[in-house]
Amino acid sequence: MVEEKFIKEVTSVLGEKGILLGSEVTERKAGIWIEEPIKSKVILRPRNTEELSKILIVCNKFKQPIVPHGGLTGLVESAITNEEEVIISSERMINIEEVDVTGRTLTAQAGVKLQTIQEEAESKGMFFPLDLGARGSCTIGGNASTNAGGNRVIRYGMTRELILGLEAVLADGKIISSMNKMLKNNAGYDLKQLFIGSEGTLGIISKVVLRLQEKPLSQNTALLAAESFQQVSELLKHIDSMLGGNLSAFEVMWRDFYLLVTSPPAINKPPIDQKYPYYILVEYSGSDQAKDSEHFNLILEKALEKNLITDAVIAKSESDRRKLWAIRDDVEQQYQYGPIKIFDVSLPINCMEGYIKDVRKKMSEHWKDFHCTVFGHLADCNLHIITAVGGNDPSSISKMEECVYEPLRSFRGSVSAEHGIGLEKKNYLGISRTDEELALMKSLKNNLDPNNILNPGKIFG
Amino acid sequence: MVEEKFIKEVTSVLGEKGILLGSEVTERKAGIWIEEPIKSKVILRPRNTEELSKILIVCNKFKQPIVPHGGLTGLVESAITNEEEVIISSERMINIEEVDVTGRTLTAQAGVKLQTIQEEAESKGMFFPLDLGARGSCTIGGNASTNAGGNRVIRYGMTRELILGLEAVLADGKIISSMNKMLKNNAGYDLKQLFIGSEGTLGIISKVVLRLQEKPLSQNTALLAAESFQQVSELLKHIDSMLGGNLSAFEVMWRDFYLLVTSPPAINKPPIDQKYPYYILVEYSGSDQAKDSEHFNLILEKALEKNLITDAVIAKSESDRRKLWAIRDDVEQQYQYGPIKIFDVSLPINCMEGYIKDVRKKMSEHWKDFHCTVFGHLADCNLHIITAVGGNDPSSISKMEECVYEPLRSFRGSVSAEHGIGLEKKNYLGISRTDEELALMKSLKNNLDPNNILNPGKIFG
Repeated sequence: MVEEKFIKEVTSVLGEKGILLGSEVTERKAGIWIEEPIKSKVILRPRNTEELSKILIVCNKFKQPIVPHGGLTGLVESAITNEEEVIISSERMINIEEVDVTGRTLTAQAGVKLQTIQEEAESKGMFFPLDLGARGSCTIGGNASTNAGGNRVIRYGMTRELILGLEAVLADGKIISSMNKMLKNNAGYDLKQLFIGSEGTLGIISKVVLRLQEKPLSQNTALLAAESFQQVSELLKHIDSMLGGNLSAFEVMWRDFYLLVTSPPAINKPPIDQKYPYYILVEYSGSDQAKDSEHFNLILEKALEKNLITDAVIAKSESDRRKLWAIRDDVEQQYQYGPIKIFDVSLPINCMEGYIKDVRKKMSEHWKDFHCTVFGHLADCNLHIITAVGGNDPSSISKMEECVYEPLRSFRGSVSAEHGIGLEKKNYLGISRTDEELALMKSLKNNLDPNNILNPGKIFG
Repeated sequence: MVEEKFIKEVTSVLGEKGILLGSEVTERKAGIWIEEPIKSKVILRPRNTEELSKILIVCNKFKQPIVPHGGLTGLVESAITNEEEVIISSERMINIEEVDVTGRTLTAQAGVKLQTIQEEAESKGMFFPLDLGARGSCTIGGNASTNAGGNRVIRYGMTRELILGLEAVLADGKIISSMNKMLKNNAGYDLKQLFIGSEGTLGIISKVVLRLQEKPLSQNTALLAAESFQQVSELLKHIDSMLGGNLSAFEVMWRDFYLLVTSPPAINKPPIDQKYPYYILVEYSGSDQAKDSEHFNLILEKALEKNLITDAVIAKSESDRRKLWAIRDDVEQQYQYGPIKIFDVSLPINCMEGYIKDVRKKMSEHWKDFHCTVFGHLADCNLHIITAVGGNDPSSISKMEECVYEPLRSFRGSVSAEHGIGLEKKNYLGISRTDEELALMKSLKNNLDPNNILNPGKIFG
C-alpha cells in the first residue's frame, strides 16, 4: 500500500501540481490502445532531472515500486501498473533544450513527443530519422527506453544508434549524466547503453542527446510483386547492391495482408493485381531526384530482366508515395478478423519461409479456421504476424503465443524485434536468451536496483 | 607470483602447445609500436570459447590477473602487462565460422585479423566498413573490445554499430552467448554492449557476428582548401546536406600537418598550394560513378560560389584517390619533430577553434619552441593532436597531457575519441566523466569481476 508519509514527502518535492491522486489517476486509460483505466493511486510528475532524482530517493527509502510512463503507446505491457505501484510520468518534462545545427544534435527532456522532435529538426533544415505510427503520442524517453525501431532501421539504425548522449536517474536517485554530443567517445564504459532498451528497469531516462541527419533530397518508392520468397530475398540484395548499400526501406507484405488492406472496407485500392504471393515496398532516399529516379528505374528494370519481380508500380509524386505507404500502414484492417493478436519477431531472412510454414502448421493443429497474416520490415529481419482464431480467452492467447514463439527456438530468432518484452512476453524470453544471459540480466538489475523498485516484474522476475 | 599449480591446471586444459613460457614470452614485443619486451611469464592460447572458459575458471580460482591480447596495435597501453599477470592471447582463435550472404552477416572468432575479414567480405561481393591503419595486424576481438573508429564513422558508425552479436566469457568462466544475427532484437537487455569498448575489463570477447554491407559503387574524393574554421564547419554542412546525409568521410588537416606531410623528406607532393590554414579531404561513396561524380562536382562548384573553399583538387581515378588519402595517412612524418605524443580527443565542432587556441596558449606557457599539429575526423568530432616539445621525459609528457586534456573540461570534450583509456589515460578520465559515472563503472566492474582478475588497473582503479 502506498503510505501517507510517502505522499507527504513526494509532495514536498513536487508541490501539489506535481502529483495526481485518486480519480485524476483512474480517469486515465492504461494505454492509448487499452480501454481499462490505470490501476494506481498516484502519478508523480517531476519537471526536471533534479525533481526526478529527489522523488526516486523517497521511493527508494520507502521501497515504493514505481512504473515510468511516457506516451503509453507500448505494445507489450511495459507501462502497466498494479494498485501498489506509483507512476512517474514524464508529461511535464517537455523541453527541447538545444538544437546544435553545426554539431547536428538535438537535446531534449524525456517527455518530448517524437513528432515534436521531428518537427523541430525539420524547422532547422535537419532530419531525425526515427519514425513510427505512434509518433504523435510516443515520447523520446519511451523510444529510448524501449529502443524503438520503425521503417528506416536498415539505413539509420534503431533508436540506440540515434542517441549520442543520455541522462538517467538510478533507483537510489543518483544522476548518471552522460550527455555526450560527439559521434566518437571512448572514454570508459558506454553507460547509456544500460538504459536504452531496458524498459525502465535499470534507471529512468530524463534527457537525451540525439544525432540529427541532413534531410534526404530525393525519395524513390515502388511497390513490387514477387512470385516466391527466394525472389524476395534475392531482390533485397539486388536492389541494395545496385544502390551501393544505400537502400532505406524494404517492407514485405504476404498476400493475405495485401488482400485485406486493398479490398473494401479498406479504403486503399490495389495498385498491383492481388494474385501474387509477395508484395514489396522499397524506398531509396538519395540526393538528386532526377538522377536518383533514373538509377532507381534502371534497378527495377534489371530486377524484371533477372525475373526477381513480376510487376511494379513506381511512385511518380509525393502523393503516390503516400498512397503506397498507406497500404503498408493500414494495419487496423486486421481487426476485421475479430479479436487478433499482433506479434513482433525477428529471425534470419533465410529461415523465414520455413518458420512461417512451421507457425501455420502448428496453428492448424489447434484450429480449423484461423488467420495468420504476415508483413514486416524484412531487411531488418523483422516480421509482424497477426493471428486470429475467433477468440481472445487466455487459453487461445497462450496457444497462439506458443505457435508463434516456439518455432523461433530452432532458428535462433527473437520473441521481440522492436516492441520489447514488458509483461506480455516475459514468459517467452527464455526462447531467445540463454540461462547465462538471463542470469547476467538479473545480476545487473540487482546491482543497480537492489530494492527492485524500478518497473518491477517487467522483462523478467 | 604465477603459481606452479596454476600452470599445471591450465596446461591440462590447453595442452603444451596452448601455453608459452619464459623466453617464448619475453622474446615478443609488448606492442607493435613498442620496443620493450613483454613482461609476463605465461601466454595462454585457447583455440575456442570452451577452452577460454575453462582457463578463466582456473584463473578465477587462483585469483590470477590476466590481460587479453589481440594484435597489440592499441595506442593507450590497454594490453601492457606486469610480471604477475598472465596473458590470454586470441592468436589461435582465427576461424571465420560463417558468411551469410542473404542475411549479410559474418561470424568470426576474436583472433581473426580485420584485413582478413575485409577480404573475406570482399570475396563474397560484400563490404565490411571498419577500416584503420593497423588493419593487417589488429584483430576483430581487439576492435570490438576497444570500439575502434576510423575514417568511415560518419556513414557507418563505430565498431559498436557494426556488431550484431557477440560471445564473451566472464571472469568466472560463464559463457555469455549473444550471437544475434538480426538488425532488430529487443528481447531483454542488450548484453553485448557491456563488452564492446570496455577493453577486456568485464569479459573476454570470443566471437562476433558482424553486419556486412553492400559495396559502394562509386567513390568521389576531393582535397579542398579553406581560409577559416568557420568555412570548414559550414562546408561540412553544405556538402552533407547536398548529399542528403550520405557523406562518407570529412577529414581535416590544419596547415602545420599539411606542410609536414607534403614537403620533403615526405614523399607526397602538395596537390594544392601550402598557404591555406585548413585542408579538407572529403569522400562520398555512392551507387553510380558517372551520376555521382557530376553531382559531387556540382556540390564543390557551389562551395566555391558560396566562398566556403578557395581551392579544390578532385580525384579523377582510383590512383588519384589513393594519393590524396596517402597525404592524410602519412602520420609518421610527425617523427621528424623528435619525440612526439599523439593525442586522440573529441569535442563539439563549434568548440574546436577555441579549444585549439587554449591548448596552444597553455603550451606556450611551458615551452618557447613546441609543435602542436592538428588533424582528424572532424565530422565525427574527433581531433588528433601531435605535440612535440623536444623531450619525452615523464615531466614533459605529463605537462603535454595537461595542456591537451584540461581545456576539454569546459567544452565537455572527451579525453578519448577512438583509442580508449587503458593505462595511459586513466588519470584523466575524470575530465570527461562525472564521479557518479565513474562510481557506476566501478560498480559494474565489481559485479562482473569481483576478484578483479580481468585486465586489472586498466581504464580506472
